[in-house]
Amino acid sequence: MTNVDLDTLLSSITFDENGLVPAIAQQHDSGEILMVAWMNRNALVETATTGQVCYWSRSRDQLWRKGETSGQRQDLIELRIDCDGDCLLLLVDQTGVACHTGRRSCFFRAWREGGWREIAPVSIAPEQLYKK
Amino acid sequence: MTNVDLDTLLSSITFDENGLVPAIAQQHDSGEILMVAWMNRNALVETATTGQVCYWSRSRDQLWRKGETSGQRQDLIELRIDCDGDCLLLLVDQTGVACHTGRRSCFFRAWREGGWREIAPVSIAPEQLYKK
Repeated sequence: MTNVDLDTLLSSITFDENGLVPAIAQQHDSGEILMVAWMNRNALVETATTGQVCYWSRSRDQLWRKGETSGQRQDLIELRIDCDGDCLLLLVDQTGVACHTGRRSCFFRAWREGGWREIAPVSIAPEQLYKK
Repeated sequence: MTNVDLDTLLSSITFDENGLVPAIAQQHDSGEILMVAWMNRNALVETATTGQVCYWSRSRDQLWRKGETSGQRQDLIELRIDCDGDCLLLLVDQTGVACHTGRRSCFFRAWREGGWREIAPVSIAPEQLYKK
């Protein structure tokens, strides 16, 4: 991706007062929503240039290269933007699981019969995801 | 939904410093992501109790009953929450189009060959959506 392309890409996006934009990761072929996280300009540039999804961690205040520790990477298939330019949709190919709990998707709780029910199994034990 | 249920529902959600939480609307059967908007407590309570999706409009600073003006309503099929409790996923049945541009989804621009390309047609002319 050229610098001109990057300028075009970045200029279309409305970052919030903290310089962030929310990004939805969706499995490109199944349509499953995997997670939502945040990107700043640097995270988006890294994602666009490498094809590996990189977010901005608000809790750690640093770039968050998805899967760098756990191996559960996201290959970018396509980047989309909404009508307002203030939300990104990442069509990805998720290796393994997206959620730190070891589930495929972070959205594993559904409101049913007056309470939150877990609707997806743990596929990989969390201690396996983050072992030394 | 009882008041106890509503308390349980609300207490699971981490609203941001403005009292808002992002909500993704996904067509329940096709998996298509339709839009992302924001909810405050009142919008969520109204959505949960009526089954009709209601957001909080940050630009108008008021409740935004989706489809009230345009007729393009969202029937709530299921509510999900992510692992952090700071993002909602609404599985909905969308009447017509979700986007104010008259397209089914707000995410109608994809980054291809160095530029944003429109990948979805206008299904309903915007002037038809908001005619008096």
